[in-house]
Amino acid sequence: MIRVGIVGGTGYTGVELLRLLAAHPDVELCAITSRSEVGVPVADMFPNLRNKLDLCFSEPALENLSQCDVVFYATPHGVAMAGAGELLEKGIKVIDLGADFRIKDIPTWEQWYGMQHTAPELVSEAVYGLPEVNRGAIRSARLVACPGCYPTAVQLGFMPLLENDLVAIDCLIADAKSGVSGAGRKASVGTLLCESSENFKAYAVAGHRHLPEISQGLTQMAGTNVCLTFVPHLVPMIRGIHATLYATLKSDADLQLLYEQRYQDEAFVDVMPEDSHPETRSVKGVNQCRIAIHRPQGGSTVVVLSVIDNLVKGAAGQAVQNMNIMFALDENTGLDSIALLP
Amino acid sequence: MIRVGIVGGTGYTGVELLRLLAAHPDVELCAITSRSEVGVPVADMFPNLRNKLDLCFSEPALENLSQCDVVFYATPHGVAMAGAGELLEKGIKVIDLGADFRIKDIPTWEQWYGMQHTAPELVSEAVYGLPEVNRGAIRSARLVACPGCYPTAVQLGFMPLLENDLVAIDCLIADAKSGVSGAGRKASVGTLLCESSENFKAYAVAGHRHLPEISQGLTQMAGTNVCLTFVPHLVPMIRGIHATLYATLKSDADLQLLYEQRYQDEAFVDVMPEDSHPETRSVKGVNQCRIAIHRPQGGSTVVVLSVIDNLVKGAAGQAVQNMNIMFALDENTGLDSIALLP
Amino acid sequence: MIRVGIVGGTGYTGVELLRLLAAHPDVELCAITSRSEVGVPVADMFPNLRNKLDLCFSEPALENLSQCDVVFYATPHGVAMAGAGELLEKGIKVIDLGADFRIKDIPTWEQWYGMQHTAPELVSEAVYGLPEVNRGAIRSARLVACPGCYPTAVQLGFMPLLENDLVAIDCLIADAKSGVSGAGRKASVGTLLCESSENFKAYAVAGHRHLPEISQGLTQMAGTNVCLTFVPHLVPMIRGIHATLYATLKSDADLQLLYEQRYQDEAFVDVMPEDSHPETRSVKGVNQCRIAIHRPQGGSTVVVLSVIDNLVKGAAGQAVQNMNIMFALDENTGLDSIALLP
Amino acid sequence: MIRVGIVGGTGYTGVELLRLLAAHPDVELCAITSRSEVGVPVADMFPNLRNKLDLCFSEPALENLSQCDVVFYATPHGVAMAGAGELLEKGIKVIDLGADFRIKDIPTWEQWYGMQHTAPELVSEAVYGLPEVNRGAIRSARLVACPGCYPTAVQLGFMPLLENDLVAIDCLIADAKSGVSGAGRKASVGTLLCESSENFKAYAVAGHRHLPEISQGLTQMAGTNVCLTFVPHLVPMIRGIHATLYATLKSDADLQLLYEQRYQDEAFVDVMPEDSHPETRSVKGVNQCRIAIHRPQGGSTVVVLSVIDNLVKGAAGQAVQNMNIMFALDENTGLDSIALLP
Repeated sequence: MIRVGIVGGTGYTGVELLRLLAAHPDVELCAITSRSEVGVPVADMFPNLRNKLDLCFSEPALENLSQCDVVFYATPHGVAMAGAGELLEKGIKVIDLGADFRIKDIPTWEQWYGMQHTAPELVSEAVYGLPEVNRGAIRSARLVACPGCYPTAVQLGFMPLLENDLVAIDCLIADAKSGVSGAGRKASVGTLLCESSENFKAYAVAGHRHLPEISQGLTQMAGTNVCLTFVPHLVPMIRGIHATLYATLKSDADLQLLYEQRYQDEAFVDVMPEDSHPETRSVKGVNQCRIAIHRPQGGSTVVVLSVIDNLVKGAAGQAVQNMNIMFALDENTGLDSIALLP
Repeated sequence: MIRVGIVGGTGYTGVELLRLLAAHPDVELCAITSRSEVGVPVADMFPNLRNKLDLCFSEPALENLSQCDVVFYATPHGVAMAGAGELLEKGIKVIDLGADFRIKDIPTWEQWYGMQHTAPELVSEAVYGLPEVNRGAIRSARLVACPGCYPTAVQLGFMPLLENDLVAIDCLIADAKSGVSGAGRKASVGTLLCESSENFKAYAVAGHRHLPEISQGLTQMAGTNVCLTFVPHLVPMIRGIHATLYATLKSDADLQLLYEQRYQDEAFVDVMPEDSHPETRSVKGVNQCRIAIHRPQGGSTVVVLSVIDNLVKGAAGQAVQNMNIMFALDENTGLDSIALLP
Repeated sequence: MIRVGIVGGTGYTGVELLRLLAAHPDVELCAITSRSEVGVPVADMFPNLRNKLDLCFSEPALENLSQCDVVFYATPHGVAMAGAGELLEKGIKVIDLGADFRIKDIPTWEQWYGMQHTAPELVSEAVYGLPEVNRGAIRSARLVACPGCYPTAVQLGFMPLLENDLVAIDCLIADAKSGVSGAGRKASVGTLLCESSENFKAYAVAGHRHLPEISQGLTQMAGTNVCLTFVPHLVPMIRGIHATLYATLKSDADLQLLYEQRYQDEAFVDVMPEDSHPETRSVKGVNQCRIAIHRPQGGSTVVVLSVIDNLVKGAAGQAVQNMNIMFALDENTGLDSIALLP
Repeated sequence: MIRVGIVGGTGYTGVELLRLLAAHPDVELCAITSRSEVGVPVADMFPNLRNKLDLCFSEPALENLSQCDVVFYATPHGVAMAGAGELLEKGIKVIDLGADFRIKDIPTWEQWYGMQHTAPELVSEAVYGLPEVNRGAIRSARLVACPGCYPTAVQLGFMPLLENDLVAIDCLIADAKSGVSGAGRKASVGTLLCESSENFKAYAVAGHRHLPEISQGLTQMAGTNVCLTFVPHLVPMIRGIHATLYATLKSDADLQLLYEQRYQDEAFVDVMPEDSHPETRSVKGVNQCRIAIHRPQGGSTVVVLSVIDNLVKGAAGQAVQNMNIMFALDENTGLDSIALLP
């Protein structure tokens, strides 16, 4: 059994980690920490865990985590970079679901996240946890930086095009839509039901923190700097991301075949048949990315539709997938459930 | 492995059965029939089943079901009573999720369902599949009639009060609220998103088909005829039933203790602590009934709150629970997942 | 033109008042105060008011309200009782949408609201602003206490039964359901979209602040103390209250006729035809209560269904209705719009 | 008073027309026809109209419309082209909310709508009813073809850029999102609450009927053929369209100023301040288009955000705006209400 600890389990990625790990056959949940909720049973905060998980929140202190084999950080940025070093020194692997180790260029990170980075040496070591790109490096990593939710959907959608130099890289467009759980479980007026249901809007068009992360990933795939316009939108639903991606083809190719071949060995990326429209509900609660490729009117614009559950393949599920790889388990372990429909 | 067939798998109880049975460790799904969809892969109709279930709809003919150990009917009333007899003769057990065998009094059934009953002898034989009441009989049953969704929530909520003769039986009230999936997956104006979201209403106050079923169950618990007022309402959400039950106490008792003791061995009924308010989302997708008992201002009116997922403990999950009992499996097999939250 | 001021216009009743008053032909909006938003244009906070209302929030000081003919308080309890006296002294009428003057018995108020009442003499003077009961007194009132949202729906629903002594008064039941806007526009986890959509639950079963207010009103109608069980529930929608009321008939009567006659001159109470089920969406955004009366199976339990928009007939609209009466306008002025459907 | 008739009033554009026209000070509603609902009071079908509109559906025969000054068609394509000629001959003006007269090129229309056009001469005469483009021609028109919902949002969003030749016309992108009411009020599985809530998807990426209509309009604005990629999506809400438009700038310009000047005299187009994100709820129920212009990271990609209520500025409201122009009324008459929020 892998002994697992979670730092910061009071948000939506935290409860989703708990749901997945409580059912994982090779995991023993040892500790979940939260400064504000010490002593509270997790099942009191999350009623779905009643009679399923007998664990209380504890202090986020090293001694509460020192018996773990791996610790997940499900915290706002700034927390993992303060604690990960100590854990790594004790031989405990770290999987960060936050943003601290995602961006390799420290000044870029500091500009977008508005604080000084206190562990730049760990950034160099950290492996970006997108298994479809970095599986080999993840296998031997001590520290994995899980991708953001938008970055997962957008990178998996663009990857085959960029790896094969098929599209103009100076005008990529990612029009992305997210359910409200992407904004987290903190009290805020903007995400009240009365403010965000029966409504649709774009936000952060001038610049969103996931932009530099996506650009870094796409640039690596393309082997050269890409220029991306990224527009996120808020959808009146709980879970799901739908990325609609636009690029201009430079040369002809059988795109359907290209995508199918690129992802044929990937258990968690499903290339749908031609002329499909993936629905976010088809991946609700499961670690899956579904992709469809279109070329409307046979023109030079390619349209890629990519959907994930932001809390699963976009966060907690991908984190567990990374853990499975790091501990040499079948990648599918604990991740093979079926989406709830309707 | 139990060889399982499903008749009529194109509705919401059908897809929920598929989801549960596809993940059940002791089940082999052999056939799913639908007159209108013969030859269509089930995954084309239900995108959550893509890459999870490789089965096509077949003709609802006996030969397609004859190799099964058990057949589930997820059909409108009138279908199971026409086919069950033939299956039973071949030694195939039958679990009906529809209404054909729920009501013992044939004239009552015929009055509420508006058709002649063609298999009254099977009604006598059928065991009402509420395991918390009839576990012993279910164990040896050939034919089980699964309770309706409202009847499950209401009966489990009232049961300890009636079994112990604690309340006046001439003025029981069940104010019940259901998500829209209770209305099924048929095209209809009333359940369009634009008609049923951002709206709340009662319906069928003059008389709902679940009324005689609930009355029959409550009468059996009380040992004498009860008089129930049952008012169902439509909630703008997909899944979930919340029954708010009112009764007048005849004598004093420790109701909290009474409920806890009644259900202490029941894996799928959770009596919550005092002063709790169960939420429907806490049972979304899982085979669970959660109950809380209140006595506002210490008066003589007892208020019981009872929630289930109408498609799971109210339909497909309870059907699988019955199957587990009929085949001497651990009752929990395939039914131990954790509700998705948020 | 009536010169109108609003104290505390940053909540949902505040913006609804603004919407109604901005379109009212006899009203000039002079001031809207908010301690936290001084200087902010109201249209910046409420995008529906862009280009419709050119007013900024000002300090809640007397001098900003002294030119008004009437001031509405759309504030949490405790605010109006501190400021109303000063306004009344200057000859300014006051309409309180909060709870400060609703309950006549001061100790009861102090018990439920957890603070000392600082203006008990104004409580005596205040007229309870349910026009269907108190129209005459409202006409000459200086200070009107608008009913709460649940109390409006429940009292209008029970009134004809109680006024005519037709039901047992020791076991009245009000099973009430409210949209989330009833919880107000403050940041809180419980009313986030991710917590309150796709969910249904009861709350405050042990005791809700609207209980003593309703009991006071029903007792006045009955002429004797009534005993009410009141169970509120949260519905995953923005607006609307549906009260399902239960009472035991003591004697026979033509209830349909009784209700129609009681409300025949009331513009804002619509008694629907027999066997109707009023929908909350039919009153969305409008000052209307719709009522249907049922007697299931012809038994002794009468079921009344009563719906309102909690922000209109349950708050801002009723406040404007009261203003119209106080200023001798046609009661319908500014209140004759049609509900948005779908 | 303008005497108005409506053909086909049982859908969502029909009930929205009824809502707007019933409150219009210069309109007398004379007839509303529906083949399937003859004799039924409209208020029975649409509960928001109870006590507001005393009219029954009548046969769609000429004699029922012959006393009208203007007739609105709120019908599927194919109906208006069969009936409009007869009305025009009698001197009755016609406003079609459907698609019959929107596209000038008959073969294009026939290809996308899959039927023969039976009144091509009326297509030549019809004025495309986008007042911000064609106000002069609308003033004297006998027959107006109201734009589709997507076309309204997209054309108003792109117009200033194309009229001023500022962007490359070979790679325009319109990523558009619509509430479910855009799919109409017909019974269909895809738009059930249980299928379309808690879900987001693109549809008709290969080609949507609004594509040729939008292309025609943009081409006219640009003075040369444009190439547009149009991807519609379904949003889990009732009303609202959000179009996110992308274009590549050819030369520099003060885009904010450009838009403000272009629309300064337009009552129903609101250019928001820089860095704004218009919300669909801010126009719910009102005849308004709100637009914001962005140039992320100061690059060459311009992003325009354009929102409307699909049933108002995208259908019934724009139709009434056209009527006001045709009958020389103030364009704002009956269209100055404030959006419901929350």
